Amino acid sequence: MQRLPGYTYGTPLVPQSPVSLREFEWMKATAMFTDEDVRYLRMSLAILADQTAEIVEKWYEFVGSQPQLIRYYSTPAGMPLQDYLARTFARFQQWIIDTAEANYDQDWLNYQYEIGLRHHHTKKNRTDAAPALPHIHYRYMVPLIYPIVATLKPFLARKGHSPEEVEKMWEAWLKAVLLSVALWSQPYVKPGEF
Amino acid sequence: MQRLPGYTYGTPLVPQSPVSLREFEWMKATAMFTDEDVRYLRMSLAILADQTAEIVEKWYEFVGSQPQLIRYYSTPAGMPLQDYLARTFARFQQWIIDTAEANYDQDWLNYQYEIGLRHHHTKKNRTDAAPALPHIHYRYMVPLIYPIVATLKPFLARKGHSPEEVEKMWEAWLKAVLLSVALWSQPYVKPGEF
Repeated sequence: MQRLPGYTYGTPLVPQSPVSLREFEWMKATAMFTDEDVRYLRMSLAILADQTAEIVEKWYEFVGSQPQLIRYYSTPAGMPLQDYLARTFARFQQWIIDTAEANYDQDWLNYQYEIGLRHHHTKKNRTDAAPALPHIHYRYMVPLIYPIVATLKPFLARKGHSPEEVEKMWEAWLKAVLLSVALWSQPYVKPGEF
Repeated sequence: MQRLPGYTYGTPLVPQSPVSLREFEWMKATAMFTDEDVRYLRMSLAILADQTAEIVEKWYEFVGSQPQLIRYYSTPAGMPLQDYLARTFARFQQWIIDTAEANYDQDWLNYQYEIGLRHHHTKKNRTDAAPALPHIHYRYMVPLIYPIVATLKPFLARKGHSPEEVEKMWEAWLKAVLLSVALWSQPYVKPGEF
């Protein structure tokens, strides 16, 4: 199977998540995430699969317009790193697919830990040998949830689904992104406080 | 002025936020939060002001139904603390008002820090001398954003506003809660990583 550069989902390169599947069930319940959300995420898969490049382009346009965000893809002197941006672009597309597939198993959980580590200074830049800022500050992680999910909505509505279905898919996405960001936060949080 | 027990907003009892107003402006931009959101939050104030008890009741019903959440309002042996629940109930109502007023000044910023400390073991339980679990685990803070905002939507729609206005108010609330939770996270994050 052809792998995207740096995409290690389901491989032995991914460390074990410090959060257990059982603990994750409690997190899901907290976000009111149910099997219905799994169904709506999977409904969104067929809709989004051929639109991932366009979606990530919108995200990149936004990030590119925000000096406080584009610097994480830039050298410390402020030069945006095109190679790094291109490699993460492809993995972002894959992340849309992975999220819409909604397979909340141990491989998925472990990969959320890996994604968190790649935002945090533990692993930031390592995957792509990028000379960028070495750490994404946590203060932007939760606010970024809004542009991520807001961008998706018109794409979900493009293939003729009813307004109610679009709304349900979008709510499932909001919950899924909240849960992912919660897991990505783990490396940032002081020991014992997560 | 009559004060709610433990409600110290705007008083010298509240410590200075470690996040500056300038840094918070960058966080707002990251959440796509604009002056339009301020207007829609303030529009929601008149709608929500006389419904805060009913809204917080809904939140409490949800928290009460979730063993992983109600334990933070319970003794370590699992006995829910009615006095503690009643005191936080009244402050939750006030939080709705404060959020809808959308005065993003130094007092507001400082109080978000205080709220974060009251979730974190630094100050959990101190305000109410409550013998409850001493720390709210971070893993639930971001997932809880969904039930908080989802509960609001029908209340925003109850006073005859157009579906578009309701949607705009709700999106402003989503952004506002993301920004608040981002600030509440600060005490949990390792030094230099926020």
